[in-house]
Amino acid sequence: MGRWAPDARGRLEYAALELYTEAGFERTTVKEIAQRAGLTERTFFRHFADKREVLFPGNRQLQEVLEQAVTRSSAALTPAEAVTAALLELSGLMEDRRELARRRQTVIAAHPELQERELAKLASWSQTLTDALMRRGTAQPEARLAAEAGLAVFKTAFESWIATADPQHTLGQFVGDAFDDLGRLFARS
Amino acid sequence: MGRWAPDARGRLEYAALELYTEAGFERTTVKEIAQRAGLTERTFFRHFADKREVLFPGNRQLQEVLEQAVTRSSAALTPAEAVTAALLELSGLMEDRRELARRRQTVIAAHPELQERELAKLASWSQTLTDALMRRGTAQPEARLAAEAGLAVFKTAFESWIATADPQHTLGQFVGDAFDDLGRLFARS
Repeated sequence: MGRWAPDARGRLEYAALELYTEAGFERTTVKEIAQRAGLTERTFFRHFADKREVLFPGNRQLQEVLEQAVTRSSAALTPAEAVTAALLELSGLMEDRRELARRRQTVIAAHPELQERELAKLASWSQTLTDALMRRGTAQPEARLAAEAGLAVFKTAFESWIATADPQHTLGQFVGDAFDDLGRLFARS
Repeated sequence: MGRWAPDARGRLEYAALELYTEAGFERTTVKEIAQRAGLTERTFFRHFADKREVLFPGNRQLQEVLEQAVTRSSAALTPAEAVTAALLELSGLMEDRRELARRRQTVIAAHPELQERELAKLASWSQTLTDALMRRGTAQPEARLAAEAGLAVFKTAFESWIATADPQHTLGQFVGDAFDDLGRLFARS
């Protein structure tokens, strides 16, 4: 579990993802998750509405991280730079969670309805970034484009981060490199 | 209806979108759609599985358009240029359908479950573009990034196209301009 703090919520998340990959998402019960974590079902339900929720923890907080990062970014930053800064900050919160992220992605990839929820989550991030950029003075189409392109970068970087065998290669590095790649790929000639 | 051909399928689609915006998506029945189009319910079900399907017509064909456009694009084109060419070709198929697209977007925006399906459709386009680029020799992360960024551009351009009051401003122009904007926004300094 690395440096990731094993509080009750974290233990439940870890136990759930172990069971989802071992026994399958459908066959795992909340009771089993609580048992594996050494906690009660009641504690489980204090942290998560259901076993699906474990796969999408804290989306509201993550949106707030993105929003605040854009809002407090220097006025000297371009919209693209503000989006980059926000997604690098988000990446920093995930660095210790690569193994969890891998397990999570395996479960999601096997279930179309979870994939749809994942896409909805990413769309909510894009909307958060767009709104924050507009409040900072960027016009709508440009804000939308910077946000959507940022998410395109983040998705690609996240996949590379999960797939790499190099434990030293951070998500932040993948995100930074993918932003560079985007600039290179779509450079106007 | 402009130059858009009013065949049975098209008439059903047009009637459905009129009714969805007039009476609401939930309250509209297949019977009413068929009546408005001057056709039978049986004809409706020959073209669409249900009233939801009317909002997502021909996704398989659209994926084929994207795939073939990338596949037959000149080897001299970069991945980004091949994606641009494919999305411009797709845009060409939609130019006559702006009013339909507007009505459709209004219905979708009001229903989270339709939004999720819309996101899944766009994700399938991204996957199609990624696969086609890889078959053309582009490495996975670069193919994925070019495809995801292309979709980011298309989404933004599509929204601008639906929102504009200028009937002469084509989707293709919005897409071309948004690709230029992307290059400008994320240019490496």
